[in-house]
Amino acid sequence: MNRPMTAARPTHRKARDDFRWEGVDQLPYKEDERALFKSITRQVLFADPELHGELRYFEVAPGGFSTLERHEHMHAVLILRGRGHCLVGREVRPIHIRDLVTVPAMTWHQFRATADETLGFLCMVNATRDKPQLPTQEDLAKLKTEPAIAAFLGSVPQI
Amino acid sequence: MNRPMTAARPTHRKARDDFRWEGVDQLPYKEDERALFKSITRQVLFADPELHGELRYFEVAPGGFSTLERHEHMHAVLILRGRGHCLVGREVRPIHIRDLVTVPAMTWHQFRATADETLGFLCMVNATRDKPQLPTQEDLAKLKTEPAIAAFLGSVPQI
Repeated sequence: MNRPMTAARPTHRKARDDFRWEGVDQLPYKEDERALFKSITRQVLFADPELHGELRYFEVAPGGFSTLERHEHMHAVLILRGRGHCLVGREVRPIHIRDLVTVPAMTWHQFRATADETLGFLCMVNATRDKPQLPTQEDLAKLKTEPAIAAFLGSVPQI
Repeated sequence: MNRPMTAARPTHRKARDDFRWEGVDQLPYKEDERALFKSITRQVLFADPELHGELRYFEVAPGGFSTLERHEHMHAVLILRGRGHCLVGREVRPIHIRDLVTVPAMTWHQFRATADETLGFLCMVNATRDKPQLPTQEDLAKLKTEPAIAAFLGSVPQI
């Protein structure tokens, strides 16, 4: 078959030593006044009209944490640097470099760095997806009936 | 909304030090008699009916290389360990840990480890995709008219 090459160009984005990439914007989250997330940045590594998935890189500074949320779409996470803990559903687990974590639909989840180390993770999602939902006071109260979850969420007010 | 939790369970697959994962099979490719690939293994990290993408981990032993192929679906690659070179279209490029590479539709590509280091990379693809096409003798001859590609493909017979 002598099909002509498509117009799309190959791309090569070189990695820097600091977990940034050439030509990829680092999108800082502002600190959330309800403390639903803290000290986290996002970089979109792959998003293309031809791809049905997207790959993003999130980085959580020491002591920081991702948004406590749930949604219909699933997350597929690979820890790229550091370590921490994650809450997925009603389970809190320690996570380490290269661990794989899935977050099923409509499951509360949050990723937290340890106090002394940056946590970075890749997250694959569907390109077409719903918006995250934040917990109500009632949702939080219910989550915190589990001692491990209450400890995970810590003394920081969550809403 | 008090929607019940889905039946799907969260999963946590712990990483081992050797770039293997708990519960993930390592699928060795047999050596190809036409030497279209060599010393490469595959692990499927994420493949789920709810995900529109898949994430695979390929590992190429020192001196090895992935299949020289092309297909309609696009590849999105993140180098997870080591270094090497890739051919994408008519360009040969050095690649290093965490570099990002896209392979557009119908573009010849191959990833090669250096002689002394293992090369490992993540590859995100659409869950629904076409089968790879292998080069004909004519395709290879055309590719090798570029000196850089001829050098990349090396003295190993490619078909």
